[in-house]
Amino acid sequence: MRVLIIGGSDAGISAGLRIGELDPAVEVAILYRDRYPNFSVCGLPYFLGGEVEGFSSLAHRSPAELAARGLELYPEHEALSLDPSRRRVLARGPAGEREFSYDRLLLATGSRPYRPPWPGLGEPGVHFLHTPGDGLRLAEDLAERGPRRAVVLGGGYTALEMAEALLRRGLEVEMVIRGERLLRPVDEPFGRALAERLVREGGRLRTRSAIRAVEKHGPGLSVRGEGWELPTDLVLVATGVRPESRLAAAAGIEVERSGAVRVDRFLRTSVPEIFAAGDLTESYHRILERTVYLPLGTIAHKEGRLAAENILGFEKPFPGIVGTQVLKFFDLALARTGLGREEAEREGLLPEVRDVTAWTHNSYYPGAEELRIRLTSEARTDRLLGAQILGPAGADVAKRIDTVAAALYAGLSREELLHLDMAYAPPFSAPWDPLQAAAQVARDSANDRG
Amino acid sequence: MRVLIIGGSDAGISAGLRIGELDPAVEVAILYRDRYPNFSVCGLPYFLGGEVEGFSSLAHRSPAELAARGLELYPEHEALSLDPSRRRVLARGPAGEREFSYDRLLLATGSRPYRPPWPGLGEPGVHFLHTPGDGLRLAEDLAERGPRRAVVLGGGYTALEMAEALLRRGLEVEMVIRGERLLRPVDEPFGRALAERLVREGGRLRTRSAIRAVEKHGPGLSVRGEGWELPTDLVLVATGVRPESRLAAAAGIEVERSGAVRVDRFLRTSVPEIFAAGDLTESYHRILERTVYLPLGTIAHKEGRLAAENILGFEKPFPGIVGTQVLKFFDLALARTGLGREEAEREGLLPEVRDVTAWTHNSYYPGAEELRIRLTSEARTDRLLGAQILGPAGADVAKRIDTVAAALYAGLSREELLHLDMAYAPPFSAPWDPLQAAAQVARDSANDRG
Repeated sequence: MRVLIIGGSDAGISAGLRIGELDPAVEVAILYRDRYPNFSVCGLPYFLGGEVEGFSSLAHRSPAELAARGLELYPEHEALSLDPSRRRVLARGPAGEREFSYDRLLLATGSRPYRPPWPGLGEPGVHFLHTPGDGLRLAEDLAERGPRRAVVLGGGYTALEMAEALLRRGLEVEMVIRGERLLRPVDEPFGRALAERLVREGGRLRTRSAIRAVEKHGPGLSVRGEGWELPTDLVLVATGVRPESRLAAAAGIEVERSGAVRVDRFLRTSVPEIFAAGDLTESYHRILERTVYLPLGTIAHKEGRLAAENILGFEKPFPGIVGTQVLKFFDLALARTGLGREEAEREGLLPEVRDVTAWTHNSYYPGAEELRIRLTSEARTDRLLGAQILGPAGADVAKRIDTVAAALYAGLSREELLHLDMAYAPPFSAPWDPLQAAAQVARDSANDRG
Repeated sequence: MRVLIIGGSDAGISAGLRIGELDPAVEVAILYRDRYPNFSVCGLPYFLGGEVEGFSSLAHRSPAELAARGLELYPEHEALSLDPSRRRVLARGPAGEREFSYDRLLLATGSRPYRPPWPGLGEPGVHFLHTPGDGLRLAEDLAERGPRRAVVLGGGYTALEMAEALLRRGLEVEMVIRGERLLRPVDEPFGRALAERLVREGGRLRTRSAIRAVEKHGPGLSVRGEGWELPTDLVLVATGVRPESRLAAAAGIEVERSGAVRVDRFLRTSVPEIFAAGDLTESYHRILERTVYLPLGTIAHKEGRLAAENILGFEKPFPGIVGTQVLKFFDLALARTGLGREEAEREGLLPEVRDVTAWTHNSYYPGAEELRIRLTSEARTDRLLGAQILGPAGADVAKRIDTVAAALYAGLSREELLHLDMAYAPPFSAPWDPLQAAAQVARDSANDRG
């Protein structure tokens, strides 16, 4: 059997490696557009900010390692069209166009950055950050031109990580967002904490600012809105991504309203023998009990691995996600899983919110730090809906959210959180873990705090 | 209604506070033997080792705070006898003997140290460490006599924490154990790592050494076995604890073979209106589906709170424990939950073991450290049985075990661990969390590693 994979990032490589583990006799060919397969795109902000040295250290595995695992790699190959009836993909590579045949096809083309309809986004000095190549170009531009000022358009994870990276490099940084606050996947008090930290670190935030255009101004640039104008030397556009489903759609494969390729729980598309995984698909959300578009590397890895198993006939459904994310922002960590109050309300649920500030461990033991925890549960059923945690980057915030993520996966109630048998010794926690302290707060006192 | 609680440590105080939260009209009286209610006994080794300053900082709450929460406190009251037919407890306090009446009684008398049958344990310089008073006496002895050498008898959590504390104070320390290895609740490779660390920190370990006697030798002491003798200045006996169920047994309340007071899932004893919680009871173990004796503060807090709810008529069963513990030993953290290979085999289960060494987070991001993870699952069903993790004390070991503890609570399988939606950003984890990396190791390669 021959499996063709289009895409050399998280989903595609995970799938290829898993097929090799399960059945080395299956041929696996992977086409990808650049020269950086299996690359940690999530690491680019740390490379650009100088926390990580060496662009190439961001590769999880080298092409040689991947080849040694039995994968046929086709770098710099862009898939142009797909013919499901003939099981053929036409691609253009360095040596020209060529057809690739398959018995099973995995679409793992990921996402592409959303390109807002503003004039001037093609000007030199305007950057997107989506691929390793984008990262290299931005690094070169920073090194060569030495820009003094930067404007970051957007307020999500990448925008925040890049605002930090550029501030670390000594640039003046202003973030410009259309709405009122940063990081909409978390509730308002947590977004506000990020805005405060941004300002404390010397950055600026411009809210409620719709953009009209980016313009060239002499040697620099200008970001212009309604009645305001920001002169700058560099613009980073970080306004989200869209599923890269154009190849699939052109071949008649069904897509969702979000533009994502439609897959069933087995990651099968609407066309036989064609699977899809990663950022070009929506993912089943266990709490919402429907699919959502959440393009994350963790999910892409899981889906890629599972798609491989289903390509080989295992018939395993994807159990689904609960929506876990974590951000490092300077020395803060902010993590979320499940639904916050705002998301829960948007979904028509009646959430109960419990807010607590708790020490990471018994306060008498040195190094205790404060965590701010919000726990959300469903008022009627006490079902746990989610948690958000803000604390110092060294305070296990990401791992604490994982415990809630496991509880959400299993559908536990808020009260069951109190019964989790969590590890305690004074240097690490308290007899009631901070999460359990949050679960104990009386609901009436909690809901006053906004 | 009047509730009488015997015991002022974790279970007793948790119960009293919970009753006050739920129904402030209920009278709650608490008898306890010393003057240190709601004290963090787990913190004593850090106080004795000098990591924590101030004995009184180890109190979770002061007597005044407890009284402000509505609790009637009777310090230095020892319960002498219990008459269930008259609902009376006879106690001796500073002002003499007195009867206390109750509508509901909670026994929270905890445990007492096991006292091996060796002559000489009453000699000056021989210490147990079980109560706050024991900690004070040991601190005074260390300060006044300035002992140079110490022998620690036992190889469990307290023994290890105290070996570290005494080494930190500059004493020569030798641990003496009857068996082959330290910390039997973890599998052999993890116990071995502790022994190596002990020696590297300047301590000594004497294995397979049954003790005959402790003897006074001039100004010092001597620990004597079969054909060996250890001169020393101080002896710490840390050979485990037993349930303090004598009061209950004398009143005709049923006890288990372990000596623990028998309770049902609602923490009711065999006698109407009498409940028991904490270290004097066994606890229901969710994986073993029977009760086990595991005297831990986390469990005592949970049981105390639940006993309060059942005393007030809620009829909530105790969901049970999974056996989670963590140790800090110098700059190492070692955590376990569920069943290791050895425990699983003792229980007649056929465990599959997966060992992995994994980075705490993407290795390109600064500060990545190695974790050693053992995952145990049931061969036939793939049910997750447990995990053990060894790593640097700053590497979130305790929180990572909590994620497994949540998975165990919910009865997840090893494969489901792969689908937990865990938080990822390069400073905190990898797209596959180390736990998931362990769950992916092929079973055949794993089982070679011992």
